[in-house]
Amino acid sequence: MTDRPLDPAVLTPDQARALFRAGLSVPTAGWCAGRTQANLIAVPREHAYDFLLFAQRNPKPCPVLDVTEPGAVSTRVFAGDLRTDLPAYVVYEHGEPVAEVADATEYWRDDLVAFLIGCSFTFENALLGAGVPVRHIEQGRNVPMYRTSRPCRRAGAIGGPLVVSMRPIPAEQVADAVRVTARYPSVHGAPVHVGDPSELGIADLDAPDFGDPVDVRLGEVPVFWACGVTPQAAVMASRPKFAIGHAPGHMAITDARDCDYIVP
Amino acid sequence: MTDRPLDPAVLTPDQARALFRAGLSVPTAGWCAGRTQANLIAVPREHAYDFLLFAQRNPKPCPVLDVTEPGAVSTRVFAGDLRTDLPAYVVYEHGEPVAEVADATEYWRDDLVAFLIGCSFTFENALLGAGVPVRHIEQGRNVPMYRTSRPCRRAGAIGGPLVVSMRPIPAEQVADAVRVTARYPSVHGAPVHVGDPSELGIADLDAPDFGDPVDVRLGEVPVFWACGVTPQAAVMASRPKFAIGHAPGHMAITDARDCDYIVP
Repeated sequence: MTDRPLDPAVLTPDQARALFRAGLSVPTAGWCAGRTQANLIAVPREHAYDFLLFAQRNPKPCPVLDVTEPGAVSTRVFAGDLRTDLPAYVVYEHGEPVAEVADATEYWRDDLVAFLIGCSFTFENALLGAGVPVRHIEQGRNVPMYRTSRPCRRAGAIGGPLVVSMRPIPAEQVADAVRVTARYPSVHGAPVHVGDPSELGIADLDAPDFGDPVDVRLGEVPVFWACGVTPQAAVMASRPKFAIGHAPGHMAITDARDCDYIVP
Repeated sequence: MTDRPLDPAVLTPDQARALFRAGLSVPTAGWCAGRTQANLIAVPREHAYDFLLFAQRNPKPCPVLDVTEPGAVSTRVFAGDLRTDLPAYVVYEHGEPVAEVADATEYWRDDLVAFLIGCSFTFENALLGAGVPVRHIEQGRNVPMYRTSRPCRRAGAIGGPLVVSMRPIPAEQVADAVRVTARYPSVHGAPVHVGDPSELGIADLDAPDFGDPVDVRLGEVPVFWACGVTPQAAVMASRPKFAIGHAPGHMAITDARDCDYIVP
């Protein structure tokens, strides 16, 4: 693993992707400020329709930014190589994670269709700009993510639980956090839940299913956004024969700009 | 054909669908105020992935509101029967319109997947509420729609030109029209073009490719929105073996509410 560069926020997507291609494997929150980060899920062509429909039916967790041609390893919004230019990957066989790798080339198959799914990191710059703290960036950790008890709407063979990311927000800034993130509907948009984690079936905020726990301080409310790891939870629940995802928090850094996804 | 009821704006979706099922065949602009109208395109399952991807890659003209299970004739947002409850249908074989019918039952096949695509009628109430005139409603006509010279982004076997709808807007209200419609990104959103029709390859506003011409008055600017007839233009250009669409302007009236599609 290479040393983490001093200020990843100022790198270009090309520079960041070159670092990851060279072997750097770190969470990408805060990297390449203003550039859109994306979740990856790649599945064999025979499962592509069900995954695309699953995304269409669950647009809050699964906003599709782009889809590759079968076998292609780049897309309009990602000029790099999807097999190598993310910091880390998880490989699934029949829904079981069988490998976590920094280079997915040896696992990539010619019939894979790759989906790039919007990521809530996109609106974190806007949150910071509005003076709303983003705890996992402050603490230099991966964002905490949780499987919930809420089922997604099924599509063919593919179903599974909603996954959420959590950011602790001071009570007086919750409205700001909602207002700011609602302007990014294609990258998860407004929160799906504000407050009591147990209503989402989350027993312990300190034990996230993916990523790292972060501190929740006095006067802060846990706020939950739909998360692009949801397709990987669907892989685990639905067990298609093969899939490759990004390692949660270790995103594809695209060439798109966060401002492309703001409305109106 | 039944007489048109006095005030279609106050009908419920169920009531409107019953009238269409009984044989009424009229354009639906202004019907069931506050309820979301949708474009229909139904294709055999083997073409469904390409159509869904075409929609994903062209979200301005093709915002997907819902997709049926193969063979199903209703969806979450449309409790009626998609074969009978629209005012009129166009049936295509190898891209050629072979029939225009008020009841598509005899043509419907068990392997059809139906897509409901957002319609700009959704934001017309909001335009009227902001004091922006909607000429085709004023004139009791179908909205004028035009094939443009702009190609859509292709998906597999499916490609074709962008289709737009046109509303003449007084110059001083163009900004209002943009601002109001931008709040509805999932039903075509902000205009794709304001002004000179020739830049879209439209030679004559008085000769729309679909719908009726409307008066453009002194001091008014033609404003163009992406149109959900685009998938039917793609059918005509790409010639899949079979498809059923709504007759342009004769929409599916869904149970969804326009306010469901407003942001933020």
